Amino acid sequence: MVKEKLITKEQAISRIAPEDIERLFYPVIDSKIKKADLEKVKLTTGINAVPGSAGGEVVFNAADAEELAAKGTPVILVRKETSPEDVGGMHAAQGILTQTGGKTSHAAVVARGWGKSCIVGCETLNIDYAKQEFSVGSIVVKKGDYLTLDGSEGIVYRGKLDLVKPELPKSYYTVMGFADQIRTLKVRTNADTPYDAENAIKMGAEGIGLCRTEHMFFDSEERILAIREMIVADNTESRKKALAKLLPIQREDFHGIFKAMKGFPVTIRLVDPPLHEFVPHDEQGQRKLAETIGLSYEKVKHRVEQLHESNPMLGHRGCRLCITYPEILEMQVRAIMEAAVKCKKEGIKVEPEIMHPLVLDLKEYQFLEALTRKVATEVQKEAGVKIPYLVGTMIEVPRAALLADEIAQAAEFFSFGTNDLTQMTMALSRDDAGRFLPDYVDQKKAAIFKDDPFQSLDQAGVGKLIKIGIEGGRRTKPNLKIGICGEHGGEAKSVKFCHTVGMNYVSCSPYRVPIARLAAAQAVVEQNAGAKSAAKPAKKAAPKAAPKSKAKPAVKAKANAKGMPKMKAKAKA
Amino acid sequence: MVKEKLITKEQAISRIAPEDIERLFYPVIDSKIKKADLEKVKLTTGINAVPGSAGGEVVFNAADAEELAAKGTPVILVRKETSPEDVGGMHAAQGILTQTGGKTSHAAVVARGWGKSCIVGCETLNIDYAKQEFSVGSIVVKKGDYLTLDGSEGIVYRGKLDLVKPELPKSYYTVMGFADQIRTLKVRTNADTPYDAENAIKMGAEGIGLCRTEHMFFDSEERILAIREMIVADNTESRKKALAKLLPIQREDFHGIFKAMKGFPVTIRLVDPPLHEFVPHDEQGQRKLAETIGLSYEKVKHRVEQLHESNPMLGHRGCRLCITYPEILEMQVRAIMEAAVKCKKEGIKVEPEIMHPLVLDLKEYQFLEALTRKVATEVQKEAGVKIPYLVGTMIEVPRAALLADEIAQAAEFFSFGTNDLTQMTMALSRDDAGRFLPDYVDQKKAAIFKDDPFQSLDQAGVGKLIKIGIEGGRRTKPNLKIGICGEHGGEAKSVKFCHTVGMNYVSCSPYRVPIARLAAAQAVVEQNAGAKSAAKPAKKAAPKAAPKSKAKPAVKAKANAKGMPKMKAKAKA
Repeated sequence: MVKEKLITKEQAISRIAPEDIERLFYPVIDSKIKKADLEKVKLTTGINAVPGSAGGEVVFNAADAEELAAKGTPVILVRKETSPEDVGGMHAAQGILTQTGGKTSHAAVVARGWGKSCIVGCETLNIDYAKQEFSVGSIVVKKGDYLTLDGSEGIVYRGKLDLVKPELPKSYYTVMGFADQIRTLKVRTNADTPYDAENAIKMGAEGIGLCRTEHMFFDSEERILAIREMIVADNTESRKKALAKLLPIQREDFHGIFKAMKGFPVTIRLVDPPLHEFVPHDEQGQRKLAETIGLSYEKVKHRVEQLHESNPMLGHRGCRLCITYPEILEMQVRAIMEAAVKCKKEGIKVEPEIMHPLVLDLKEYQFLEALTRKVATEVQKEAGVKIPYLVGTMIEVPRAALLADEIAQAAEFFSFGTNDLTQMTMALSRDDAGRFLPDYVDQKKAAIFKDDPFQSLDQAGVGKLIKIGIEGGRRTKPNLKIGICGEHGGEAKSVKFCHTVGMNYVSCSPYRVPIARLAAAQAVVEQNAGAKSAAKPAKKAAPKAAPKSKAKPAVKAKANAKGMPKMKAKAKA
Repeated sequence: MVKEKLITKEQAISRIAPEDIERLFYPVIDSKIKKADLEKVKLTTGINAVPGSAGGEVVFNAADAEELAAKGTPVILVRKETSPEDVGGMHAAQGILTQTGGKTSHAAVVARGWGKSCIVGCETLNIDYAKQEFSVGSIVVKKGDYLTLDGSEGIVYRGKLDLVKPELPKSYYTVMGFADQIRTLKVRTNADTPYDAENAIKMGAEGIGLCRTEHMFFDSEERILAIREMIVADNTESRKKALAKLLPIQREDFHGIFKAMKGFPVTIRLVDPPLHEFVPHDEQGQRKLAETIGLSYEKVKHRVEQLHESNPMLGHRGCRLCITYPEILEMQVRAIMEAAVKCKKEGIKVEPEIMHPLVLDLKEYQFLEALTRKVATEVQKEAGVKIPYLVGTMIEVPRAALLADEIAQAAEFFSFGTNDLTQMTMALSRDDAGRFLPDYVDQKKAAIFKDDPFQSLDQAGVGKLIKIGIEGGRRTKPNLKIGICGEHGGEAKSVKFCHTVGMNYVSCSPYRVPIARLAAAQAVVEQNAGAKSAAKPAKKAAPKAAPKSKAKPAVKAKANAKGMPKMKAKAKA
């Protein structure tokens, strides 16, 4: 219709629901199967964390998943919850099913990165790891039984159902081309491996907005052993020894990612999760670790116990780890810069953006930044090569958003981590909210929220804090680069919000990049329409609004320079 | 000197450090003991959670503490951490020593309420519950060994040291009288029992700002059983049956507190902690519970497992419990109103303030408020008695402070819960921060914070959110009653902040009431001095500040009407 000039490009892209785009990439249950037949084998439902369908034999731990998958058997990994230790098995599985958690739980986030069917928060499951079985009411499902997951609807079926992979229509590429011409917001991706990075580029990503360095640690026995040795070390000397083993591994990782990204910007977040997520919690695992690294079992056990936290989400994690153990930061920054040097020598363009997580104070950030620049300078001096690089921070703690004007004195970029920012601003643990959040979202019950705030950004509350953060940051540094790297970066309504408040980019998992591209274009179209229709009332409102807008000129100046938030006029009118 | 007119009352109260007042109420180690001798028996140090000294035989669980104390043996309760289950034993003990936690951990908060010596976060302790012993390096301390705690300094001594209880000087009463004449901020107390309430009145409290209803649940076997039965109930019917058993118990509790408070206002917070804190986590306890309430052990075990949360602080707690189980709210409001009716019939003046914790949204609050008023109306109708009562909310979730203007449409009062607000705004778990916060506060290391934010309010960050909350609330309701009930309400610098931002009252543990009274008076004196010295520059700055002050007139109007924040002029100048 655009070719025939019946509608404009703008009209074309406005007619598509961004969420529908996502479904183009995933296998679905064959629509030829009758509804009544599906109903017969329906076992239970959970939260539809990642769309698409998958089938396989049930396994209850990552090791079994990897072993069976290696033999070519498709498997569904069933866990109460997943942790970084399970990542290998999650990757090997066709689909993932967990008893607890919500759309931003570990299982959901990791699976979404791979576009792998995933159902979480399936509270009816009664899992017995010892017996290798789970029950739903009186029905018992054992290891080896076949399940089919419908991740789009969050339904678990017993037995094997035929799956169909949809073909991408040609019009997809045409429409996405329109979207890219119209949008002003950049779209990056969250990717942790060269494989993810390459995949994301195919989906249209223009850089990595979040590379989670810790996801690399679980890729092999050698890696996890080195990180565990670093964690149980009880003095700086042995910690540095263990870190020295990790350095070449991380350097290679970063080199691979830089190469895959072909000169696109890459934001690398230094280690984030609490250390206890990396250590074995069972006696067998602890004994093995003790033996391999030459410490007593008691010492390892005691160290693991010491790492236990009541509320790990609010605990010793993020940049706090590098305040306590600066040698971790030194190793990671060295690995990043050495990888960049290697790329440059190979003629590959590279511009790393080093990002500190969980920052909450200017002084804290300055401590981290100084150490980062010291190591980066050393590496460049040693190599005799100059690397352009940025140092910046996540804004994911409410305090950081409140004091963004101060933090921007030193930070070169902000990336809003809206998963954590939502958790803290709303006092909602993403892993636990499944128990009561449904009552809050259910429009027939309390109807408190319109959407699950972990799926679609809570614009009234968390959004207010984001605005405070952007206004503060740009008041200090008008050209501050600002993006988002929470899961919201791939949800249409949230992407439009990011555009409206004047962010430079969103970053989301590879399979959601097309959603973000389309939503960003729609945001421009909606904004222009809003500006036109609001033109008259906006003029009337102008004198009244004037004193207020004086108070925060930086954001607007910046925004207007980019031809963006004319929508504000509408909001005021 | 005031009597001799050498100095004014204002000068007199300004010469006293508020913290010094607190020490007047606690026993201390006899100053005749030589420092060198003390050094010889010093075992280790922890965080000085509650001042004063105490000695006794070491016990490792609450039951032993109660048993020995009943026989007249003084005991020190040593735990990795404490939970509501331990409250009986904590009350019985002379002092409390924990391995983990900070100044606002469960152990610290509960002990402070009783003015009981307490050291927390003593990380060097290696406790073995099974062996009933702990070690510090190579030194082993067994059950029955005698320890002396110096809670003021956070030092643990081996053996029995002589303690001396200081006498209150007469000048104490004179000075506190001056303070009461000068201050404008009201001082309430956090009290959960008639005993605490009476004690607080003696310390000068003018009401209860926080009555934690859940602390009452652990007072007897009968109570804890009823609450546990309520929790493991798997349907509304059996939950209501268990709640019916709790109703008369809670009614008596509230009646006792109202009587003790003699007409002073009493703010009662509905149930707050996550339910898993109330259930037994060991097999023996679960079997006993199952037997007593006639459920299978497996069912009880499964229910307890279901209650487990990854981050309970951000989980299913506070008013969320009443959104899921409105029948809990119904029982508690009924108990409060029936107790009030009983008082009124006995000629005792009473005005309950019913407070909902963890509120984060207007719609959520409206749901709770409607149900509260429905039950309150029913009770009054049944009794044919009219009770004046208020319904209000804690502001302890960042989102609630951000959206305070909306919430104030319905809430009749705000009480800032700064313990939780600090945890969420700074992403700091009070129970886990002991591991890294020292590096943040240590002025020789990173020196990021000047004070521990759990002791002295983080005025830059959390304080900013409080200001947003007060401005928002009073913009909607200029006369909104606003107080604070976090531990900060008993810390001098924080009390002064509360005065400056225009709160109506602070509430703190009984033994800190005198600190708050003195600090509130000092705040007035400092403010007046500031206003005088800033009089000239303030005038100059006035025209510039004008447009900004127009944006938020409500707070200022209110504040000025009360003759308060003239200090603002100084801040601006």
